[in-house]
Amino acid sequence: MATSLPRGFRSHVANIGMKDSTDDFTLVVADTKCAAAGVFTQSRFAGPSVVVSRAHLSDGTARALVVISKNANVANGPQGLADAHEVVEGIAAAIGCKPNDVLIASTGVIGRPYPMDRIRAGLATIPKSIVGTDAEAIARGIMTTDTIHKIAQATVTGSTARIVGVAKGVGMIEPNMATLITMMFTDAKIEPAELDSIFRRVMDLTFNCVSIDTDTSTSDTAVILASGAAGNVDGAAFEAALHDVALSLTKQVARDGEGAETLIEVTVDMARDGEQAKRVAKSIVNSPLVKTAVHGADPNWGRVAMAVGKCNDTDIDQSKVVIRFGEQEVYPRQVDAAGLERLSAYMRGDDVVIHVSLNNGNASATVWGCDLTDGYVRINADYTT
Amino acid sequence: MATSLPRGFRSHVANIGMKDSTDDFTLVVADTKCAAAGVFTQSRFAGPSVVVSRAHLSDGTARALVVISKNANVANGPQGLADAHEVVEGIAAAIGCKPNDVLIASTGVIGRPYPMDRIRAGLATIPKSIVGTDAEAIARGIMTTDTIHKIAQATVTGSTARIVGVAKGVGMIEPNMATLITMMFTDAKIEPAELDSIFRRVMDLTFNCVSIDTDTSTSDTAVILASGAAGNVDGAAFEAALHDVALSLTKQVARDGEGAETLIEVTVDMARDGEQAKRVAKSIVNSPLVKTAVHGADPNWGRVAMAVGKCNDTDIDQSKVVIRFGEQEVYPRQVDAAGLERLSAYMRGDDVVIHVSLNNGNASATVWGCDLTDGYVRINADYTT
Repeated sequence: MATSLPRGFRSHVANIGMKDSTDDFTLVVADTKCAAAGVFTQSRFAGPSVVVSRAHLSDGTARALVVISKNANVANGPQGLADAHEVVEGIAAAIGCKPNDVLIASTGVIGRPYPMDRIRAGLATIPKSIVGTDAEAIARGIMTTDTIHKIAQATVTGSTARIVGVAKGVGMIEPNMATLITMMFTDAKIEPAELDSIFRRVMDLTFNCVSIDTDTSTSDTAVILASGAAGNVDGAAFEAALHDVALSLTKQVARDGEGAETLIEVTVDMARDGEQAKRVAKSIVNSPLVKTAVHGADPNWGRVAMAVGKCNDTDIDQSKVVIRFGEQEVYPRQVDAAGLERLSAYMRGDDVVIHVSLNNGNASATVWGCDLTDGYVRINADYTT
Repeated sequence: MATSLPRGFRSHVANIGMKDSTDDFTLVVADTKCAAAGVFTQSRFAGPSVVVSRAHLSDGTARALVVISKNANVANGPQGLADAHEVVEGIAAAIGCKPNDVLIASTGVIGRPYPMDRIRAGLATIPKSIVGTDAEAIARGIMTTDTIHKIAQATVTGSTARIVGVAKGVGMIEPNMATLITMMFTDAKIEPAELDSIFRRVMDLTFNCVSIDTDTSTSDTAVILASGAAGNVDGAAFEAALHDVALSLTKQVARDGEGAETLIEVTVDMARDGEQAKRVAKSIVNSPLVKTAVHGADPNWGRVAMAVGKCNDTDIDQSKVVIRFGEQEVYPRQVDAAGLERLSAYMRGDDVVIHVSLNNGNASATVWGCDLTDGYVRINADYTT
């Protein structure tokens, strides 16, 4: 039973031959101009798609969103920007709107110009009447090396409004204010300014808390479009539903990290402030030694102590820190041989939860990541060749 | 032809059964109390060995240095500190000096108490007359999972003074103010205050610029002892010779990183300041996507652009950045198919040099690291089991 788009949106998903025969051209069109918000990579090598979409979102509205996968169109100089504008203008002409109501996202290899002949041919095949409503096709159309498509939905309590989100991304993932590519669609009616502030809060607690490999992409793009077809909703209920969708997508992204076999969730609590909690949690979830220990179910919990220790805040005191895996305390309580056995068995599960209390304040943060495997090395040692 | 210690030092290297039959107990004794300096990990989980050595170095002198390998004695609570004091007191009694003239370093697994019965038996076997002068034996005695021992030496220009340094460390290596364990010995005569400032400057340009895996150890210790037996030396000549020794050891550490097959050297120049240059260079050398691309000789230079871009300083401008591999410019100059072939061939070498100019100022920095391989994952997925 395929997930459909919320009311007010239609889609066209196709293969235009970017790399192979899988879908690589994804267009979502709203029936009318709608409220829109987005957050983007902070990279200083941000691509033209990010530059164009950021500008086109400045008025808080949009009509269409196109995603080209298998080529990021990044680091291609002035030609890259000209190509992005040409794509957006082509979409605008095909669906009958202004170019600045079209958003664009791209993902794939860096430093290769768009094959514009193939893209022009693809633009020419956009049907006059766009009728697709299958959100799963959208989730698949934006994939690159993802092994599964990522999709989530929720209904806003007290209304008939739905939120449907899709995401892609398996590597070059430690988003900073955004993620590789995620798109969310809702038929809730919500003003652009409120949509923007809700979206940023939710992204900060979800996609900005995931890291596959510490590498922030040049193409990170997260957008939401609200068609309004379901009428008004309660703001708090909408935020809660959006959080559910974004959290589900975040975990799907972490679990499908390149080569990943285990989802790692790290919570740091009783920290001085949220910034400290998140920084310590990221230090743990990004440590290659923690990630490989989880991969091998090696009960080497000392590596978590190491990862806490390298956050050298003077108010982190090893005599106050408590470290747990799941429900099992491993520090400061000494772990005996039976305890190491139990810990190793726990680490063989699909999910490993690491919990650190700094006993230093009241703030907390949770982040997500994955184990580091031979598969990660193999995938990335021969990506372009 | 084995490298010998400089004049004024003797050593005793033995196996005391910490884990297997390889040497794991290394003691270096100066004929008389000598000038000494050290830098240590900034980790908040620093071990008792670091705590004790830092305190014992506060007067700028030392008589002896003991290294126990295969067990880090970290995160063992008050017992760990008591055990470290017992070792130091045992050494002091054996050689006839005060405990606070003895330095100690430990390296190995975290969170396992010292096997004190075996260590006490080892202390009892220290000979009355210590006569060893083989520095290679010292370099081997401090190894854990190192595949080769690391040693370097230099002569101070204009004198007969020598500097001999040894180091160990293959993982949990992104030193912050120190490195896993490195020890340098010289017969130059040099005052403690001058020795300390020279040592810190040299460490900042060498060991503090290496990263195997972004993980800062709890046990990092770098010390130098100067016996004075060769008389006075020129300070600048001494600093130059010390830099040669430390740089050689730094590169030996990078090349022997866990699972490493390729040494990566990254220079960032024309940066706003040294901090920015080093931060961008570290971002490149630590990127798992850059490290795996080097491993696979995948000419995916766009990952270097990504790693520069994620340092989101507003004064990094992609239109001014120049990226080179060896002598080959890959950005902004477009790389054609023949250029990608040439780049891949270059990346199959033992050393890969990445050079980035920010065109943003006059500062520069060079850092060292290694590729990320299946071997790294295998080594670390089953370290303790």
